[in-house]
Amino acid sequence: MNETIRIIGIDPGLRRTGWGVVDSAGNALRFVAAGTVRSDAGADLAVRLCQIHEQLTAVMGTHTPHEAAVEATFVNKDATATLKLGQARGVAMLVPALAGLPVAEYAPNAVKKAVIGVGHGGKGQIAMMVRTLLPRAVFDTEDAADALAIAICHSHHRGAAALARRVAAQA
Amino acid sequence: MNETIRIIGIDPGLRRTGWGVVDSAGNALRFVAAGTVRSDAGADLAVRLCQIHEQLTAVMGTHTPHEAAVEATFVNKDATATLKLGQARGVAMLVPALAGLPVAEYAPNAVKKAVIGVGHGGKGQIAMMVRTLLPRAVFDTEDAADALAIAICHSHHRGAAALARRVAAQA
Repeated sequence: MNETIRIIGIDPGLRRTGWGVVDSAGNALRFVAAGTVRSDAGADLAVRLCQIHEQLTAVMGTHTPHEAAVEATFVNKDATATLKLGQARGVAMLVPALAGLPVAEYAPNAVKKAVIGVGHGGKGQIAMMVRTLLPRAVFDTEDAADALAIAICHSHHRGAAALARRVAAQA
Repeated sequence: MNETIRIIGIDPGLRRTGWGVVDSAGNALRFVAAGTVRSDAGADLAVRLCQIHEQLTAVMGTHTPHEAAVEATFVNKDATATLKLGQARGVAMLVPALAGLPVAEYAPNAVKKAVIGVGHGGKGQIAMMVRTLLPRAVFDTEDAADALAIAICHSHHRGAAALARRVAAQA
């Protein structure tokens, strides 16, 4: 019933893509690893996308998660920034999908609600709550903290969905 | 001097990604193949990105181009459309880059100028000029015609760059 599911959360960006891996067993959450994938701002776009692909693929190989979650990006920036983000996000979603993982998407306010308890709050607040929920968490950037928050959000949602299935099966 | 360079042009889109392959030798251009990669509109985004990746990778394997060119997208659409396009474009640029190909980007008006002679014109006009420049061209969609136009544009630009290098070497 409480098998351990390893989840990778990804917060994509062309310059910095945060990633965070947690183990989820029932209501228990355990920090596994987190970090930041960087692309060389001076390189061609195609090369930068390769760098993100290569580093994220290495993370997948090291930590072998079972499921992935990505934030459904907030598109309130200018078009050029949105396009850049989209390109990085395409690669960030492709990597776990190519490995056969289901890739869930969560709205930013769902992610905030999962870790802060409300659907709004600053970046610093997310990092603080991630430290509270995962006391052993070590992360180098706010992008990595956000990625852990996305993984926590997925853990909550999949737990709720599994509970609903069990209730329905017993009805 | 006039070695044959095989070029793949790609016109990315989440629903339809056009591709077109031409052989370029000096001023001569020869149609090789063109087509359209489709993703299943009912599937999850990550699955759709995998479909684009898989089909484009197969095209690369069949036609083994040496260089790739992609249109530097016009970002005048709404943010949601731009993000979708960005995600498809990220994967479309990643596939040739992973195969070790240089991936050039051209502004839409540069592509139009290369095939129509001016920096503006409708989609139908591009398809008509592609048929004129590549009499043997067969394409199933306007996206595939656009992809051939992008490949033609790259052929012209790389030819001009090579000429400039030869002139500089002789000076």
